Amino acid sequence: MKLLEDRIRKDGILAEGDVLKVDCFLNHQMDVKLFHEMGMEFKRLFAGKPINKILTIEASGIGIACVVAECFDVPVLFAKKSQSINLSGDVYATKIQSYTHKRVYDVIVSKRFIGPEDHVLIIDDFLANGCALQGLIELVQDAGATVEGIGICIEKGFQEGGKLIRATGIQLESLAIVDRMDPATGEIVFREQ
Amino acid sequence: MKLLEDRIRKDGILAEGDVLKVDCFLNHQMDVKLFHEMGMEFKRLFAGKPINKILTIEASGIGIACVVAECFDVPVLFAKKSQSINLSGDVYATKIQSYTHKRVYDVIVSKRFIGPEDHVLIIDDFLANGCALQGLIELVQDAGATVEGIGICIEKGFQEGGKLIRATGIQLESLAIVDRMDPATGEIVFREQ
Repeated sequence: MKLLEDRIRKDGILAEGDVLKVDCFLNHQMDVKLFHEMGMEFKRLFAGKPINKILTIEASGIGIACVVAECFDVPVLFAKKSQSINLSGDVYATKIQSYTHKRVYDVIVSKRFIGPEDHVLIIDDFLANGCALQGLIELVQDAGATVEGIGICIEKGFQEGGKLIRATGIQLESLAIVDRMDPATGEIVFREQ
Repeated sequence: MKLLEDRIRKDGILAEGDVLKVDCFLNHQMDVKLFHEMGMEFKRLFAGKPINKILTIEASGIGIACVVAECFDVPVLFAKKSQSINLSGDVYATKIQSYTHKRVYDVIVSKRFIGPEDHVLIIDDFLANGCALQGLIELVQDAGATVEGIGICIEKGFQEGGKLIRATGIQLESLAIVDRMDPATGEIVFREQ
């Protein structure tokens, strides 16, 4: 998606350790107009799929998921990273390793909000090693629901998550895939799509 | 806002300890159509204010803030609950006591995204004792920015947060104010507005 690639080139900041900071528009400050354009693109990419719910994970996926959900006219369910006293005990749970925060989270969704009748589009801001996505896929499958597709804003194409998930046969669409980036020169190479 | 009050009566679940669970449509599963209606109501309530940015706090405020931001045509900034390696060190920080999770969070926003030129609408899902809001107000004031108003979905009118914040002179608008609720009978009494 050229609009997103251009924005990454303009406002993304590269740092050592394969860090691509897009906190200016994606995951700290959030450009909701861009989110809407991304939502319309996901709508095009997943046209014809019987999607009735969007699943994401807190925190930075929530904003994008909600704006995308408006384009699909469906509700959002976000997976929570730890047990809250306000959430009933009746949950599907999995563990997700966070690369960014270097820890393992318990991730849960309430059984009241997902079941065999659901056709789910998973939305997240980043795909790197795929741990978060594999956890979300597991939650959907535990619920007996169907993963209709996965929509990602930025995929780090030089990490293995995208390859692993595409190998499962699930339709995975990343609006921008970074195949190479060099913090020394600021160069970002996107995969042709 | 009658639409929200009706929804709380229909789908809200009362529990001991002043718990009002609205995870069916507000803060776990999220009804983005309702969020849009709430956004239009905030737009009406804050008409004429020179709002150029919406501030919220992760996690459950983010979805509402993003949909509301579309109504205002401004970006969202969400305060993060702990230092992330992807966030620059140059941050405004405060501490917020969480009633729900019974702990104290360090809450930060990057100095790059808020400054004296900003006129901020703070959005959150709940107002109870007001600790989260007071932390967010402090962040805005530390940045030299202006709090133009605060928009809340559900205020627990029997806790003191609303009273404390209104006493500061800031325009605080809660779309539903619960003055009394009884988990034994399921009765919810909303304040006339």
